[in-house]
Amino acid sequence: MIREVTGGITVVPGIKAGGIQCGIKEAGKDLALIVSDPPAISAGLFSRNKVQAEPLKLTLDHIKYELTRAILVNSGNANCCTGPEGYSHAQELASLTAKYLQADPRAILLASTGIIGKKLPLEKIKTALPSLIKALSPEGGRAAAEAILTTDKTSKELAVEWNYRGQTFHLGGIAKGAGMIQPDMATMLCFLATDFNIERSLLQYALKKAVDKSFNRITIDGDTSTNDMVICLANGLARNERVCTKNQAYRAFQEALDHVTLALAHLIVQDGEGITKFIEIRVVGAATPRDAEAVARSLANSLLVKTAFFGEDPNWGRFMMAIGKAEARVNPNKISIAVDDLNLVQQGIAVLGAWEEKAREIFRKKEIRVVVDLNLGRAETVIWTSDLSTEYVRLNSQYLT
Amino acid sequence: MIREVTGGITVVPGIKAGGIQCGIKEAGKDLALIVSDPPAISAGLFSRNKVQAEPLKLTLDHIKYELTRAILVNSGNANCCTGPEGYSHAQELASLTAKYLQADPRAILLASTGIIGKKLPLEKIKTALPSLIKALSPEGGRAAAEAILTTDKTSKELAVEWNYRGQTFHLGGIAKGAGMIQPDMATMLCFLATDFNIERSLLQYALKKAVDKSFNRITIDGDTSTNDMVICLANGLARNERVCTKNQAYRAFQEALDHVTLALAHLIVQDGEGITKFIEIRVVGAATPRDAEAVARSLANSLLVKTAFFGEDPNWGRFMMAIGKAEARVNPNKISIAVDDLNLVQQGIAVLGAWEEKAREIFRKKEIRVVVDLNLGRAETVIWTSDLSTEYVRLNSQYLT
Repeated sequence: MIREVTGGITVVPGIKAGGIQCGIKEAGKDLALIVSDPPAISAGLFSRNKVQAEPLKLTLDHIKYELTRAILVNSGNANCCTGPEGYSHAQELASLTAKYLQADPRAILLASTGIIGKKLPLEKIKTALPSLIKALSPEGGRAAAEAILTTDKTSKELAVEWNYRGQTFHLGGIAKGAGMIQPDMATMLCFLATDFNIERSLLQYALKKAVDKSFNRITIDGDTSTNDMVICLANGLARNERVCTKNQAYRAFQEALDHVTLALAHLIVQDGEGITKFIEIRVVGAATPRDAEAVARSLANSLLVKTAFFGEDPNWGRFMMAIGKAEARVNPNKISIAVDDLNLVQQGIAVLGAWEEKAREIFRKKEIRVVVDLNLGRAETVIWTSDLSTEYVRLNSQYLT
Repeated sequence: MIREVTGGITVVPGIKAGGIQCGIKEAGKDLALIVSDPPAISAGLFSRNKVQAEPLKLTLDHIKYELTRAILVNSGNANCCTGPEGYSHAQELASLTAKYLQADPRAILLASTGIIGKKLPLEKIKTALPSLIKALSPEGGRAAAEAILTTDKTSKELAVEWNYRGQTFHLGGIAKGAGMIQPDMATMLCFLATDFNIERSLLQYALKKAVDKSFNRITIDGDTSTNDMVICLANGLARNERVCTKNQAYRAFQEALDHVTLALAHLIVQDGEGITKFIEIRVVGAATPRDAEAVARSLANSLLVKTAFFGEDPNWGRFMMAIGKAEARVNPNKISIAVDDLNLVQQGIAVLGAWEEKAREIFRKKEIRVVVDLNLGRAETVIWTSDLSTEYVRLNSQYLT
């Protein structure tokens, strides 16, 4: 039984965090540190964009070798497309943080989010590091959650507890989004921690499973960032016997991890600037999982579908267009479309009648569920997305480098 | 030597056309007819969307069998997702037109553009047909070009002449766009005619080649229509010896066809509602043509790249992001990016210096050329696209079904 609790990532025993302002951004906190005592095993998932930010490259390297002591995160500057100098800046920050924490440099992971192609203001971060170390506290989760934001309106954190065989476990996380909504402020980051004692490759497996069902199922604009990462630390402080197989203890942990990542993923979509609607697109009856995925993404990323939601217009012809253009097996005469519980199209034919007023009512809601049944098989998927508003375009065009 | 001439599609001997108002749309012409005397061989290319409009299905069927006498086109209603009734409406219109022209019904091709999923107002069209037949004239190209429009601001027509061995040939065309810019008004149509005498399968080959270099290289929003088609009629009235091989006469014809289709394709992009910029994206140095294509489309369809153009912001970090997310072989350290003749990125590193003001100046132009050099091979491609404006979103969300 999963219970949501307050306290964010620092609800986890052994985890301290802090967030301060070091002056990369014009205003607000912009430097965060998450520390685990004892050092934790860690698992990570990273952007598949072939253009990778320097801190991401460094983290990919460090996460292989050592137990992780800390994650240092800055907002306001992506340290991406900054070449060898950018990488050496990342190395210097890892070394310095390691020195303060008396750790190996490879025990430090790094993440950045912000403008691409601008030189990292290294001195500002170096100068601020001692204050950040001092600011670390077992109540610092919120401050860290705030310091990793760029244009997010609210900080995103969540923690849960669960019991297993009389023992209580903890898992907490912080995230920032959302979908490249502000120019170059373009990164989805998530940092998780748990006191669950689990074997490293199994933690990686569990994280991959959780992310595939959550962060990998949200889309705002189809653009993928150069800095995206999800990291999970597991410091084992619950002192359960180390879990190495997919037993019941593992399943309880996976459930907690799924719960936290899904909730954080939804918070990312809901906080998209310029976003007025939260849309769930469920595709069922596909011949293959790949087909379900292609149809769902074609709908979720179609400008005409997204503007129809913004316009509160139940314009199902656009849905048919987006389904038909997907690289997937589709029979137009078998497609059924429903919004919430109202059928708009049944086996390719419009369901006429008194639905129009009802459909408009549904499209005026803040959260809308679309179900597309391809009636060709048993594969299905779900994606969460948003509408596309004039405000999105305004924000993304008025922001100047 | 290709010369542009006035007169549009009816510059071609034997081609008459007309366009009238029959009342499908609230205002303006909405019914067009293009007739060839003598009947013409015809070639066609059609939307790859798996959801196909009924007139498109009928045309796919008819174009196989007979010489073509006429193309009947209506705007304001796509006759798509209208099921067996929609198809029988299309059949009835083909039969009736055939009767008026004393032709076989299969000599009539049909196209529609407009709202998806609404029943075609058959009686209005049937009632108007006799007037349309009367309106046919060798000067009617412009009226037909006007009658196929939906939300286009201007009609699109072009004609050329060329000489070959002392003989003059003609080719003319009309088109409507553009890229699903107005909700459900979502079709790219193009009708071409020539008096060149050419064998049918070679005409199909030439048309495919021309379309691959023109209409298949433009994108507004990545959405593909259920009704798209390009048809070329060749009535042989120039009475040259029928061309069956890729000889010099063929090459002159291909050049004329390329010229007209490319010009019409550019007119479609330039007339997109809400569009403020015409963007050429050229990708060179790709390892394979498929890679070049993937990178060009990733850039052309990225919301963040498109909004950067609208905002007149030389935000090359977004370009790097869009290149990196493409399903293509890419080495970030080898990517060079130029706008017009200004290098922004050289081998993955920003070209710093006095470029920023110059770059802003280029981004303020109405036409911008982007060249991405992947420095990995010799494959290249070009795509023409537009920016993404608040006006695009406004138009596509405020139009209600």
